[in-house]
Amino acid sequence: MKHASHWTADPIELLRVGEQFRLSDIDPASTPGFDGDKKAGELALAEGADRLADLQEQLFAGSRMGGDQRRILLVLQAMDTAGKGGIVKHVMGSVDPQGVQLAAFKKPTEAELSHDFLWRIHKEVPGPGMIGVFDRSHYEDVLIARVRELAPPAEIERRYDAINDFERAQVASNTTIVKVMLHISGEEQRERLQKRLERADKHWKFNPGDIDERLLRPKYQEAYQRVFERTTTPDAPWFVIPADHKWYARLAVQHLLLDVLERMELDWPKADYDVEEQRKRLAKS
Amino acid sequence: MKHASHWTADPIELLRVGEQFRLSDIDPASTPGFDGDKKAGELALAEGADRLADLQEQLFAGSRMGGDQRRILLVLQAMDTAGKGGIVKHVMGSVDPQGVQLAAFKKPTEAELSHDFLWRIHKEVPGPGMIGVFDRSHYEDVLIARVRELAPPAEIERRYDAINDFERAQVASNTTIVKVMLHISGEEQRERLQKRLERADKHWKFNPGDIDERLLRPKYQEAYQRVFERTTTPDAPWFVIPADHKWYARLAVQHLLLDVLERMELDWPKADYDVEEQRKRLAKS
Repeated sequence: MKHASHWTADPIELLRVGEQFRLSDIDPASTPGFDGDKKAGELALAEGADRLADLQEQLFAGSRMGGDQRRILLVLQAMDTAGKGGIVKHVMGSVDPQGVQLAAFKKPTEAELSHDFLWRIHKEVPGPGMIGVFDRSHYEDVLIARVRELAPPAEIERRYDAINDFERAQVASNTTIVKVMLHISGEEQRERLQKRLERADKHWKFNPGDIDERLLRPKYQEAYQRVFERTTTPDAPWFVIPADHKWYARLAVQHLLLDVLERMELDWPKADYDVEEQRKRLAKS
Repeated sequence: MKHASHWTADPIELLRVGEQFRLSDIDPASTPGFDGDKKAGELALAEGADRLADLQEQLFAGSRMGGDQRRILLVLQAMDTAGKGGIVKHVMGSVDPQGVQLAAFKKPTEAELSHDFLWRIHKEVPGPGMIGVFDRSHYEDVLIARVRELAPPAEIERRYDAINDFERAQVASNTTIVKVMLHISGEEQRERLQKRLERADKHWKFNPGDIDERLLRPKYQEAYQRVFERTTTPDAPWFVIPADHKWYARLAVQHLLLDVLERMELDWPKADYDVEEQRKRLAKS
C-alpha cells in the first residue's frame, strides 16, 4: 500500500491488546512499526486520506443500494489532551461528512443518569454504511466511574459484562468495532495543558478539572488496565496507540480504519435498475 | 477579504430573494457577482476554507466557555443532482466535523408521518456553537407534498405559517438561519443524471424515481416560487443560487456562511478561571 511505505511492520499486530498486555509496558513516545519522522508521517497521512475517502464512499454506497448492512464503530478513549479531537478533525475530516456519525459523550445529564448507562449509547450507534465515532463512550462508565467511585464496585463489575454483551450485539448487527486508547505520558500532558494556558485562543480548551483528573492518573491507568482485561474480545479488540507524537497517533488510527475497510472487500454496488432502460427514459425526459 | 478577490459585487444582495423575485428570471448558468472562471472559483473556495474553519472554531469555542448561545442553521433545498451533497462535502468538509450537525431528511417513516411534519425537524436543530445543515428539510412538506398532493391544500397552506412560526422561534433562540435553493437547469440535470447512468461508480446515486421527479419540474418550480413568496422573512431569508456551475454554487454558499460568521463579530472567549493560578497548579502536578 502506498500510504504504508514507512511501515516496517504491520501496526495492527503491534498495537492490538493481547493476552499479557500491560499498559505500563507501553512507551507513549514510541512509534511502533513506523520508521519515518513527523514529516514522513504527515505525508503518509495525506496519502491515506484519499484512500480512506474512497473506501468510505464505497461503504456508504453499498448501504444505499444493494442493502449492505455493514458499518464501523470507532471508539476513542483517552486522558485529556491526548488528541481525540485531533483524530476526529484530521483523520475523519478527510471523509465526506455525510458518511460519518460522530457522538461526543460528556458528563451524563440528569435524564441520562436516570437510565441504564447504555441508554444514551444505544441511541448513537451508527447506521448501515456509516463510520460511527465515539469521542469518549460507554467506557467512561467503568473509567471515571471507577476512579471517582460514581457507582458501587458491584455495579462497575456488572458493567464490564454489559459492555461485552452490548458490543457482541453490535457485531451481530454487522458492526466492525475498533476500540482505541490514545496513550500519552504525564509529561507530554503537562506540556499540552501548559500550551492551553499560554495561548488566549486555547483557553477555552482548558478546564481546571483537567488538573484534578491529571492528579488521578495512576488510578486511571489502573482502570484502563482493568478495561483491557475485561473487555478485550476477539470481535471488539482494543488498540493502545502511543500518542505523545500526534502525527503518529493520527496515522495509526487512519491505518486501523483503512485495514478494516480493506478487509471488507468493498466494491461499487450493482445497479438495482435496468441501466439501459433508464438511459432511454432520461433521453426522452 | 482575500477570498473575495474575484467578487465584483456582494453576492449576498444579488442572491437574496426579494419582493418581486421570480424564479423563472434566474439563469442557472450565471455566476452573479463573480467574474472569475472555474479555476479562480476553486482557488477562492480553498482560500475561504481556512477562514471558515477559523470562524467556526471561534463560534464553537464561545459555546464551550462563556455561554454564547449562537448557532447557524443552513437549509439546503434543490432538485436532484443540483449539488447538495457537494456543498456538504466541499464546503462543510473544510470545517472540523465536531462543529457540524448534519441532518439529511429522507422520505418520512411511518413514525414520522404519525406526527406533525415539524416533529422530526425539531429533533435535529443545531445546539449552541454548532453549524447545523439540513440536507432537505421541512420545506419538502410544502414542495413534494404540494406537487404530489401528499396533503390537502388547506394543510399545505397551514404549513407555510407553521414554518414561519418555527423559524421565528429558532431565531429567537439565537439561531441564524440561511435558506438556500440550488437552482439547476433541466439540461444540466439531464447531463448529470446521464453521467450517473454511464459510470458504474455512480450508479448507486441514481434512482429511477429521479426521472419521475424530473418530469414534474414545472410543478416544482411553481411550488418553489410559492415557498419564496410565503416563507421569505427578514429573519430567515432565502437565497437562490445558480448551480449549473458546481464551483460557483459551492463558493456562493461558503460566502453566505462567511458573511454570517463575520457579522457575529466572534472572538476567543475569555478564560472563566484564573489563568495564573491554574499555571501554578499545573506546574506542581
